Order: sequence, then structure tokens, then C-alpha cells
Amino acid sequence: MGSKVAIIMGSDSDLPVMKEAAEILDEFEVNYELTVVSAHRTPERLYNYAENAEENDFDLIIAGAGGAAHLPGMTAAVTNLPVIGVPVKTSKLSGLDSLYSIVQMPPGVPVATVAINGAKNAALLAVQILARKDLELRKKHKEYRKNMKNKVLATAKSLEELGYKEYIERSEKFAD
Amino acid sequence: MGSKVAIIMGSDSDLPVMKEAAEILDEFEVNYELTVVSAHRTPERLYNYAENAEENDFDLIIAGAGGAAHLPGMTAAVTNLPVIGVPVKTSKLSGLDSLYSIVQMPPGVPVATVAINGAKNAALLAVQILARKDLELRKKHKEYRKNMKNKVLATAKSLEELGYKEYIERSEKFAD
Amino acid sequence: MGSKVAIIMGSDSDLPVMKEAAEILDEFEVNYELTVVSAHRTPERLYNYAENAEENDFDLIIAGAGGAAHLPGMTAAVTNLPVIGVPVKTSKLSGLDSLYSIVQMPPGVPVATVAINGAKNAALLAVQILARKDLELRKKHKEYRKNMKNKVLATAKSLEELGYKEYIERSEKFAD
Amino acid sequence: MGSKVAIIMGSDSDLPVMKEAAEILDEFEVNYELTVVSAHRTPERLYNYAENAEENDFDLIIAGAGGAAHLPGMTAAVTNLPVIGVPVKTSKLSGLDSLYSIVQMPPGVPVATVAINGAKNAALLAVQILARKDLELRKKHKEYRKNMKNKVLATAKSLEELGYKEYIERSEKFAD
Amino acid sequence: MGSKVAIIMGSDSDLPVMKEAAEILDEFEVNYELTVVSAHRTPERLYNYAENAEENDFDLIIAGAGGAAHLPGMTAAVTNLPVIGVPVKTSKLSGLDSLYSIVQMPPGVPVATVAINGAKNAALLAVQILARKDLELRKKHKEYRKNMKNKVLATAKSLEELGYKEYIERSEKFAD
Amino acid sequence: MGSKVAIIMGSDSDLPVMKEAAEILDEFEVNYELTVVSAHRTPERLYNYAENAEENDFDLIIAGAGGAAHLPGMTAAVTNLPVIGVPVKTSKLSGLDSLYSIVQMPPGVPVATVAINGAKNAALLAVQILARKDLELRKKHKEYRKNMKNKVLATAKSLEELGYKEYIERSEKFAD
Amino acid sequence: MGSKVAIIMGSDSDLPVMKEAAEILDEFEVNYELTVVSAHRTPERLYNYAENAEENDFDLIIAGAGGAAHLPGMTAAVTNLPVIGVPVKTSKLSGLDSLYSIVQMPPGVPVATVAINGAKNAALLAVQILARKDLELRKKHKEYRKNMKNKVLATAKSLEELGYKEYIERSEKFAD
Amino acid sequence: MGSKVAIIMGSDSDLPVMKEAAEILDEFEVNYELTVVSAHRTPERLYNYAENAEENDFDLIIAGAGGAAHLPGMTAAVTNLPVIGVPVKTSKLSGLDSLYSIVQMPPGVPVATVAINGAKNAALLAVQILARKDLELRKKHKEYRKNMKNKVLATAKSLEELGYKEYIERSEKFAD
Repeated sequence: MGSKVAIIMGSDSDLPVMKEAAEILDEFEVNYELTVVSAHRTPERLYNYAENAEENDFDLIIAGAGGAAHLPGMTAAVTNLPVIGVPVKTSKLSGLDSLYSIVQMPPGVPVATVAINGAKNAALLAVQILARKDLELRKKHKEYRKNMKNKVLATAKSLEELGYKEYIERSEKFAD
Repeated sequence: MGSKVAIIMGSDSDLPVMKEAAEILDEFEVNYELTVVSAHRTPERLYNYAENAEENDFDLIIAGAGGAAHLPGMTAAVTNLPVIGVPVKTSKLSGLDSLYSIVQMPPGVPVATVAINGAKNAALLAVQILARKDLELRKKHKEYRKNMKNKVLATAKSLEELGYKEYIERSEKFAD
Repeated sequence: MGSKVAIIMGSDSDLPVMKEAAEILDEFEVNYELTVVSAHRTPERLYNYAENAEENDFDLIIAGAGGAAHLPGMTAAVTNLPVIGVPVKTSKLSGLDSLYSIVQMPPGVPVATVAINGAKNAALLAVQILARKDLELRKKHKEYRKNMKNKVLATAKSLEELGYKEYIERSEKFAD
Repeated sequence: MGSKVAIIMGSDSDLPVMKEAAEILDEFEVNYELTVVSAHRTPERLYNYAENAEENDFDLIIAGAGGAAHLPGMTAAVTNLPVIGVPVKTSKLSGLDSLYSIVQMPPGVPVATVAINGAKNAALLAVQILARKDLELRKKHKEYRKNMKNKVLATAKSLEELGYKEYIERSEKFAD
Repeated sequence: MGSKVAIIMGSDSDLPVMKEAAEILDEFEVNYELTVVSAHRTPERLYNYAENAEENDFDLIIAGAGGAAHLPGMTAAVTNLPVIGVPVKTSKLSGLDSLYSIVQMPPGVPVATVAINGAKNAALLAVQILARKDLELRKKHKEYRKNMKNKVLATAKSLEELGYKEYIERSEKFAD
Repeated sequence: MGSKVAIIMGSDSDLPVMKEAAEILDEFEVNYELTVVSAHRTPERLYNYAENAEENDFDLIIAGAGGAAHLPGMTAAVTNLPVIGVPVKTSKLSGLDSLYSIVQMPPGVPVATVAINGAKNAALLAVQILARKDLELRKKHKEYRKNMKNKVLATAKSLEELGYKEYIERSEKFAD
Repeated sequence: MGSKVAIIMGSDSDLPVMKEAAEILDEFEVNYELTVVSAHRTPERLYNYAENAEENDFDLIIAGAGGAAHLPGMTAAVTNLPVIGVPVKTSKLSGLDSLYSIVQMPPGVPVATVAINGAKNAALLAVQILARKDLELRKKHKEYRKNMKNKVLATAKSLEELGYKEYIERSEKFAD
Repeated sequence: MGSKVAIIMGSDSDLPVMKEAAEILDEFEVNYELTVVSAHRTPERLYNYAENAEENDFDLIIAGAGGAAHLPGMTAAVTNLPVIGVPVKTSKLSGLDSLYSIVQMPPGVPVATVAINGAKNAALLAVQILARKDLELRKKHKEYRKNMKNKVLATAKSLEELGYKEYIERSEKFAD
């Protein structure tokens, strides 16, 4: 049977960031469950969710939170599964508070931390981890990387051919 | 019956900081229990400790932790008692990580945060809170403040009379 | 007779933040007085306000300020009541200046500091403190927490049932 | 055949930090290779090492570096294996430079970042990842966690029984 | 034969910043090539580009990148040419992550770092460097500086004559 | 004869900030000259301006600049007059770069630094300094402070009478 | 009659920093009074000290404090005299907390802030201010600057003549 | 005739850092002059030194300074030569103040900034720049890089052969 990932977040206001993890897992056809688990408003739920994650057949957990972001670390404290933490950007301290709260875990209980708002990379890291026991996934990931590389090469070529002025004019990206 | 305070910390390495809270409560003759509760290494213990704190007759909880300091916030998530958080200084980020992890709590679950390594003030804040329902304690706190003030006034007087050179020479504080 | 809380702030420009404290106290039916006390422009008023707070039957003071935020700490220096400090976000240093000015109090005079712009939590902390001597308030606070939890559970259920795409589409929150 | 981990670091001056990863892998009887690969002084070596890691039967790479710490991110750019990054503390910016250089990777190429100097947690994270395809390792990790928990519980019990004064006196940890 | 500069950047989203370097080199009639080289998505391209830069007759390389900005440092590791690094501002950490990733290079491999988003200065620094072996360029640079100075003097004169109120009113710069 | 103040700034883009200094001096009827002096683009002008300031009958200099803000410190290095420095907010580092560049002067050459964008306070500080030798100015400053205080008291009174809801509704300040 | 300066500090532990201000005033033969005034432990004393400073014939006040450093700003709020603030370095946040608490004053009440631990410069700034109405002091200050310059020129000459190796060997400064 | 470099620093206390630049230039047999030029204590000297650097046959200037570090930027403002800036670590803000003061130069006047205390890299950057017009130097630099690489390879080999325990034991570096 295939792998399964849990994507949890502290609040539905984290969805615009965290849905990027789901989109990647969709693209790689990895099963996942996405829901809200609030460390501070539903601590029992956090406890139960993490406690049962392994026997609920999850292989790893992606947890996103902002501010005093305790969800990833507390989940990691309760489960034996690997936990990937996504520090969500905050309006006050730009996500520095989220980053420090997630990455600075004490010896014994790691959280695999990605960049501020890095939900996409959290899912790609999950794919890389799951791919260690899934050759199909490994192949897809190699493909994904190749496409990524080719897109950059195409951009470079186009930029070199057009020159930067023309390139900027033609690109929708730089339109106001 | 009198008030009771719980002083908890993430590791016994926080003792040199957190014992200052105990010393103040000793001075004010407030009952307390001091122990280690690790959010990350003993999450069930944290859950149970906080869950039962109110029926174990505690009035409030002082919680100190460093780094990704989840103990105060998670305790506050589980109990309805007021929680005072002490960010413990860390060797890497000077306690900024501890401070952000403790103070930046989301709406709904506050932690009354004091200064980095501010365990003494955590206990004084506890005294001020408990004094709202304990006239004797209120009196002691007033006395404490008066003594504190008088000590500063005596220092000022001595410094003015001796001049700063003489004062520095006489003071053990500035001896190497 | 019931409890009474003072909500003070350095300037009326802090009102959009600090009114959230008033809204919570309204919800819990806790008496309060809300006004402006400027540490720097009206130091005598600060002094008198804090000096008389206890005999004016206040139980605690919530003080919000931004920048070189001296109001909470100076109020705490003059009164024996517990003081809760709210660091107000600033346009230049994002409220880091406010946070450091409020939380880093010296031994002897604590300020119970909440998150940047955390006026709502300041009021909830006040409720938790006042509830230590008011069983009715304690019951209300338990109820408040339960509702908060249930709201998260409902969100989680709805998100799980709809899936994140449908959920985002239906939610006004994410509409542009 | 069992799993294999690469532990690489930018300089032998990172050894006192990075050896903690090796010690954990020794304890879990996980095969590993530990060596120095400098992103800046030996870029070809970095390229070759990462390029061949998968066919050299490595399952994942732990990479530690300080300052403008490019080793983990560049390794992750070349290999398809999961890469765990350890920001090494620096004498100038306390490891903030290392942390930002490692964790803030762009979309497409994640590095699983642990705490500043968190080499021990890097290895534990590796164990958790490898345990997904190795039941024996999963059992050992559960055991490890249990021992960790029991050690905290014993500390707590001893502290409660002795009282903090006696505890501090008896502990070597706090001896000068 | 004249000098030639490479302007490379990690992504075409850096173009609005990096094109200012091209504009300066256009103004000074210095040959350049501008393209995209992604350290993380096209590491072989980075390696090859840097490896061949010298025999491709480049005299120096201007490299801009944001976040975990490894392009300038890795380019500097592979080539013997001087590398000028431009830390591109990021939406999360304002470019502090870019700055630290670029400037904090270890002993042995320098990157000449300019201000956050300082692509214009990167090109002017390139001009100053190339001018050491190109008297014509030296003359142009002197001229450029003189014009810059004269523009400031004209501004000052105009401001002094009009007064600040009139000056602000007349200037388009301050129109909403 | 009366006092005279120089208000200088690094660029006319600093005018929206620095004109607040002029407005205060206008209000206090203190003579001043306002102009642009760029430390980096017109170093001779800076040198001459500062060198001659005293014999041009200036009493003190207010200097505002942003980023690597060298104008205040270099002016202070050349003149014997007191120099007040205004760190201008920058789009990249929020003025932290300006603040550090201005306030962290080495022993021997002070700059009296005010808040980020604090041009108004720079002028008020100038008034306080000049008032030491001008009784008329001293009287005006006392009056200014009294008015400031009265405005706060009126705000407080109005807020207390109307209640915060009514107050917010009536105030233009909070209208969108 | 001559000028008089007040040097106040929050605690006698600030003396090793603040005495440098006294030493400069001794050198310039400016009258001063040095004492301890704690904003938080003796708020009435602060109020009275600042309230009476002008009629006690002080011309300006130098105030040093660390952490949540309210002494300079509150003194400035009460007196009309110019106040120079010295942020004292702290063991936790290196004096950043002190700096922000002192320099980020709101419009209306400036504090002339010098560098962290910059007590010497605070006194030199005081001398520059007092020199505006004291020709003798102006002369001494010019002399002081000249000596300072000559000392640097002598150092430069010695270093150039000896070469850096010899210079380092001969200098006590670099001896271990 | 060969190239010549000026190494200047704000104070002789910067010598232990800045001498590393001299050592590299000695190694590469590049002529240099090393001296003290204080931006704040000897502004005329700075002006003259920079003004005459080009006709004194210097090819570039390495300037190191700490705190409000104006020396590199002001030198760059006066001369047309390339200026390399070395932010010297400070005891209060760890060199962040130096870094911001040096790197955040405004458009028009670049300073090629290296790492905090990165004097060695400043000299290597100078060598790379001078090598553009000096084939002999280019050869030496290639050699230097090769040796650097070989040293890392030897370290790696020794570490791999001995194992980390043996390696640490044998190395003096890790002896206490």
C-alpha cells in the first residue's frame, strides 16, 4: 500500500500557505489528509492526532503554524514519525517568531524545518523521504527536478535571446 | 487555606534561573511545588500536570523554558489557570528564541511573559496576583517594595556622600 | 462587589488595538475604565493614576503603548497592582521596540507582557487572574475556552468534509 | 541491506558539533560515513560527492556548515536524496547567518533544517526517516524515546524529593 | 580588446533589481552578458558557467540572488575572477537572509558584497575595477562622479532658493 | 542676536521626514537654514559646510540620513558644534541600518541621536538646547509642553465621556 | 556662575559605565552631581529629581540605564532641560533593549541618545551643548579635539615607521 | 611597475583583525601601505588620504572599521579607486552595526564589503582585482586556490582514515 501524509495547520488562516503542500502531493499522487489542529485551542486534539498518527497509517506529518508556533514541535514530541515544520509568516515579526519557535527544538525531538512559508518545499521534502521506500516516487521526483531545471534553462535562453528589455516587456510577470 | 503556586521548568539545567522564583515565594511564605516538566520529552506529563493543576489546588503556574520554549504556552493551552512564562537565556540566540516562543501566543491563550531569565519577577507577579485575594500578602508586598525603595535610597545617599571613586573602591561588587 | 480593570494607553492612536481588550471585558461582563494616559506627555497623570488605582478599586491595570513604551513599566513601578503590558506594533520597528521596552523590566517590578498587539489576550489574562477570586468568572472562562475549542473543531470538520479547494472557495475570508 | 548516512561538514572545525550526529548513529547502529566537504574550497568535490551519493548507497545526507553556509543547500541541489542541514554557531553572528543561509531555500529544493548546533537532532531525524522502511530501527527509536522520558521523570522525582537546594548541591552539573 | 562582465541572477524575478546593473554598464559602454543561472535548480549550469567564465573572456561576475542566496558564493568558489554579490530583497526577511548568505563567506573565497538591491552599485564597482586597466573608463567614471555631484549641488541650490515648502510643491517626486 | 540652526539631509528624498524639523523651528521662531548635503556624493561640500558652520553663526546642526548614514557622524567629526542625528527609515532594513550608522559613534565624537524618522524631536531637542541661553525660548518651550499635555488631557476626557465606540466613530482619524 | 550637569543612573551596577561621563566632566572642570535614581524602584524620586532639576540650577541631565530603560525618557518627560540618554549594555540582549527603550521616544519628548555604553560621549555632548554659552569651555573643547587628533596622527606615524609586526610586539595593548 | 594597496583602519585596536590583510599581501608579494586613518578623529586626514590615493599610485584601498563605521564609505566617496570594506566585530552589537554602516551605501558610491572581521578575504579580493592586469598574480592566485583545495582534501582523507574519534584526539586544534 502507498504512503500517506498528514498536513496539519494551526488555523484555517494558514490555508493559503499550506495548500501549496497539498498541491505538490496531488501532483505526485501521494495520499494525504489535510486538516486544522490547534496546539493552543485544541491541545487534546493535537495530542490524540499525534498519538494515533502512526497507527492511522501516516508516514510523516507536515505541520504549519505562525507566531509562538508550537504545533510542529508538540506533534514531534508525541509521535515517532518524522515531522516537517513550516513557519508561517506573521504580520508582526515577519515569521521570525514562527521560525525560532519551530527550528530551535531541544536535543531529542527534531523538527525538519523549511523556509518561512515554505509549504511547497515541505511537501517536496516529504516526497524525497517517502521516495526512499518507493521507487515509483523516486522516478517522479527525478522527473520533477528535470522539468524544474529545463524551465530555468528555457528562461535563460529566452532572456539571452530577447535581451532584458524585450524580455521584461513581453513578460506578464512584470506588468503592472 | 492559602494559595499555591507551581514552578515548572523544561530541564534541570534551568534550575539556576528558576530557583530565584522559589526564593521569592519562600520569602513571601507562599506555598509552591517546584519540578521538571518537559514539553518535548514528557508531553503526557505536561498534559496531565496542566490538566490537574486546578483541582490540585494550584492558583497559578510559573513555567520557564529555553529555545523553542513550548512549556509555558502548552501549559496555558491545557489549564484555565493564569500561566506566567520565563524565557530562559540560551547560548545560541541569547534567549530571543525563548522570548518569541513564549510571548507571541495567538488570541485566546495568553502567557504572562516576563524578562529573559526573569524568574524573580515571575514570582513577584505571582505574589501581586495572589495578593488580590489575600490581604496579608498584599501587606507583605507593600513592605517588600518599601524595602526595595529604601535600599536604592541608601545606595544613592552613600554614593553621593562618598563620591563615585571612593564608592567604587569600597564596594565589593566592583572588586576583581 | 465585582472586579474592576483599568485599560490605559499612551495615545488614542492605540485605540484600534486596545479596544479588543474592552470587547473581551464586555463579553465577560467585567467592569472597566478605558482612557488615555501618556507616560511622556502627561507624567503627573500617569503618576497619579497609578498611585490611586488601588484605592479607586481597580484590581489590575492593562497598559498598551508603542515605541519607547514606558507606560506599562512606569505604572507597574508606582502601583502594587498587577500590570499587564501590551506592546503596540510600530511602523518602524514592527513593535520590537515596544516589546523590549515592556518585557525587559528589571528585578523587582514585573510587567505581565503579552504578544505584540495582543490586547485581546491581555483581557483574557485579566479574566483568568480575576477568576481566582470569582467563581462565576471562572465558569464563564471555562465556557469561553470550550466555545473556542468547538469553533476550531467545526472548522476542522468543515475543511475535512469540503476539501481545501472547496473550503477556500466558499470562505469569505479568502475572497479578494 | 541496511541504510547508510553521509555526515559531511564544511571544515574540521565543525567536528566538535557534528560528531554528535555520529554518536547517535553509532548508538542506533546505523552505517555512516563522516568526512569534510567544503562548498567553497572544494566545489568539485561537493558536486561529485552529491552527484554520486545515491549510487554510493547513501539514503540521506546530514550536512553541517557555518556563516554563509552553502554546503547543505548546494548538496540538496545536486542530489535527489533528502538533506538535513545543521547550522553551526559562528563567533560573529551566533549562527543566525548559518541558519538563514540553510533554511531559507527557494521553492523546489528543500533542506530539512534543525536547530543551531543541532547535530544530535539531525541524526535522530535521520533515524526517524530511515525507520519508515526499517522496523528494527523503529523499535530502537521508540526505546530511545522511552529512555529519554524516563530520565526526565527520574530527574523530576529526585528534584521533588530532595528540594531544589539539596538537588543543586548534590548535582555535579552545578558545581563550579 | 575591451572588458566584459557577466551579470547573472538566480531567477528572472530578480530582473527588476538586476537590470539596474545592465543600465549602468550600457551607460559606460562596457560589454556584458546578462542571464539566469540558478544555483539550486541548475547547479551544473552554475558550475560550468563559473568554470568557463575566465576563458570566455569575462573579467568579473556580478551575481544577484535572494533568500538562501548561494549563487554569488558558489560562483566565487569555482572561478578565479572577482565576484560581486547583490543581496536581493525578500518578502519575508527583507533581504537580511540574502545579505548574510552572501557577505559571510569563509576565509579563502571572498564575495564583494554591495547593499540590499544594490545592483546599480555592483555595476559601478565593476566599472571602478575595470577602470584600473582602462584609462578611457577611468575618465568616464570621473565624469560620472562629477555629474552626480553637480546634480546634488543643483538640488541643494534649488531647495535653498525655493524654500522647502515651494520645493515640495513643485517636485513631482512628492506628488501623490 | 538670536540662534541659528542648520538642517541638512543626504538627499531631497529625505524632505518629507526632515521638513518636520523645519516646521517646529518655524513654530518656535528659531532661525534655520535647510539644505541638502550628501556625505557620499558631495564630500567636499560636507567638509566645507561643517568646517564653516560655527563661523557662519550656526549654533547646532540637525542632520538626517538613511542607510549607511554617514552625514551626521562626519559632520560631527568636522565641526565643534553639537550635532543631532535623525535616522531616516529605509525600505529595506526599516531604518535599523540608519540608526546603527548614526548612534554607534566611537568615543570622542558624539551624535545626539533621536528616533527613526524623529525629525520633529530633533528640532525640539534643538529648542531645549538653545533655550539654555535664551529665556524667551525657554518660556515658549514650557508653553509648548503645557499645550501638549492639555491636548492629551482633552483627548482622555473626551474618550472617557464618549466611550471608546462612540469616540472611534466620531474621530476622522479612524475613518477609512 | 558656571554650568551644572546631573549624571543619574538606574542602579549602582551602571557605575563602571557611567563614571566615564564623570571623568570627562572632571577633565573639563564642569560641575556635576552623580547619583542613583531608579525609575522603577524609586519613581517618586525620579519625578522629584526631574521636576526640580531646573531650579536646582542644572543645565542638563545625563541618564544611563539598561534593559527596559525608562529613566532617560521619563526624566525627559518631567523636566524641560535637555536629557542625554546612555543605553547600558545588558547581558541578555547586548543593550539592544536599552537602545530601543531610550531612542524610540514619541514626538514631543526627545532624548539625545548616544552609543551603547557611550557615557564618555554623553559627557562630551554635554560639553558641546554647554559650550554654546561658555567661551572658555568652547576653547577647552577645541583643545580636546586637537589632542585627540594628534594622538591618532602619532599612532599612525609610529605604526608606519615600525611596521605592523613591530608595532604589535611593542604595544602593551596587544599583550596577553 | 607593480600594484600598490592601501590598508587603512579607524584605530590601532583594529590591527589584530586588519593585519591578516597585510599577511596575505605579503604572501602574494603585493606592495601595500598600512596605517591608521580615523574618519571621526582625523577627518581632514581621511579626506587628504583618499583624495591623493590615486596619484600616490595606489590601485585600491582596503578600509576596516567598527561601530558607526564611516571610514570605508567616506573613503569611497572621495576617491575613484575601488574600496573594499571590512566590518570589524564590536563588543556590543557583534559587528552588525559595522556591517550595516559599511554595506548599505547609497546608489553611486559602492563599497565592496566582505564578512565581519574578513580582512583576509579583503586582501584576496584585492589580489583577484589586481590580477586582472597582472598575469603573474593571476598565476599565484590559482596556485593559492589549489593549495587551499589540497589542504581540505588532505584533511578529509585523514579524517576518513582515522575516524573522527582518533582524528579529534590527535589534533591540537581540539586540545584544551
